[in-house]
Amino acid sequence: MTANEASEVVLHESERIDDLLSHDLKIIQSDEVFSFSMDAVLLARFASVPKRGRVLDLCTGNGVVPILLTTRTQAKLEGIEIQPRLADMARRSVQLNALDQSITIHEGDLRELVKETGHAVYDAITVNPPYMPLNGSDLKMNTHQAMARHELGCTLEEVIQACNRLVRNGGKVSMVHRPQRLGEIISLMREYKLEPKRIRMVHPRAHLEANMVLIEALKDGKPEVRMLPPLIVYNEEGTYCDEIMDIYYGSQHTPPMSKGGE
Amino acid sequence: MTANEASEVVLHESERIDDLLSHDLKIIQSDEVFSFSMDAVLLARFASVPKRGRVLDLCTGNGVVPILLTTRTQAKLEGIEIQPRLADMARRSVQLNALDQSITIHEGDLRELVKETGHAVYDAITVNPPYMPLNGSDLKMNTHQAMARHELGCTLEEVIQACNRLVRNGGKVSMVHRPQRLGEIISLMREYKLEPKRIRMVHPRAHLEANMVLIEALKDGKPEVRMLPPLIVYNEEGTYCDEIMDIYYGSQHTPPMSKGGE
Repeated sequence: MTANEASEVVLHESERIDDLLSHDLKIIQSDEVFSFSMDAVLLARFASVPKRGRVLDLCTGNGVVPILLTTRTQAKLEGIEIQPRLADMARRSVQLNALDQSITIHEGDLRELVKETGHAVYDAITVNPPYMPLNGSDLKMNTHQAMARHELGCTLEEVIQACNRLVRNGGKVSMVHRPQRLGEIISLMREYKLEPKRIRMVHPRAHLEANMVLIEALKDGKPEVRMLPPLIVYNEEGTYCDEIMDIYYGSQHTPPMSKGGE
Repeated sequence: MTANEASEVVLHESERIDDLLSHDLKIIQSDEVFSFSMDAVLLARFASVPKRGRVLDLCTGNGVVPILLTTRTQAKLEGIEIQPRLADMARRSVQLNALDQSITIHEGDLRELVKETGHAVYDAITVNPPYMPLNGSDLKMNTHQAMARHELGCTLEEVIQACNRLVRNGGKVSMVHRPQRLGEIISLMREYKLEPKRIRMVHPRAHLEANMVLIEALKDGKPEVRMLPPLIVYNEEGTYCDEIMDIYYGSQHTPPMSKGGE
């Protein structure tokens, strides 16, 4: 597909096209349904991905993680999303970037995917799951937003169980989540033979608690965690730190007009 | 015991008396056996301790943690140490500071202590356990040092199991350890009903991986972790950061001549 064909991708009401900033990539978003956040961008940068092979993104939403991963790997990228409207947006974003040869979007339930693919077929998995457990949650938002944020479609345990089934021995699983859940994440990962190896905490400022955790596990690995240097998002002047500037805008540090979905 | 009596405490060959810096406290140390490190000082500062009640320090070594804790609580403090020579040093350090009314040192095996005390009798437990698992370890050092550093006397699981038995429901267990073991620590704590609630990473410098983790769990707590701001030991000029200066030397920031066992 050429850039010209790509420009013919259909946009539905409320949808817009945002730039993926430092890369020559675009993405269809809608605040009604889903907009990617810094979490997804940091996950796509943090995850160890093989140069070739097969990489799967669970809970892919509008496909932002596999689209960003095309800048880092030649692997075949797949995403799976349970919400039809989001899976459709993701497919159109793939077309928009003429990435049909690199990315396949599955619409469906991640708990069922192994029946299609078979066990242990992926070299790496990334996942930005819904953060909030169902118990006691306020679910006044619309269904699309609620499913992206709350464990309506699947629990944390079901996500980790799916990773265990789908990734090969020695393959890697990378997740972004809230630090509040870190205890559950680590014990569930280890229960499902995914040994945490690299953890990075993201703090809004140096003196504040972390509000995001990046964690990578190795299937059937031996226990040994590396706690990476903290990622501090804002410096003392209240502007992005150098590393975030690099990730968003490339090393030139020249912010474009649009900040996209961030 | 008066200060005069305290000065009559016996010192054995190779032993010396160090200052505990910002506090008017002293400690008997010997490089042949054990010298406290920053780990113990940070643990004594990090741990949540009740104002009154009973607090136990496992693997107490020369008693540095309970001695430092006397500056933060009126609780009855106890320490248990398996090595007779260290337990004796700890007792003499307690005498040296005239703290016999506040601190009791048990000589014995932490796995057996519950038989003496009964279950769930402590309001809080602190522990700075041996860091290295036995498999593949280089054990050329002397027995005293080997036992302090390697899991010769008890494994990580046995330490955590002892905490589970000894702390009351709603009581707190605080540990300092190496980040490499974080996966095992978290899943073992949760297995033994100790829910991790507060974690703080200690990085030698802002751009380096953590080399120490402080972790506090609540007996029978609900899962919810707070990831505290990182503690960065050295600033860019290579001197201690303000927080470490405060901890070691008090807020005046006037380093005494001796740096003690650090």
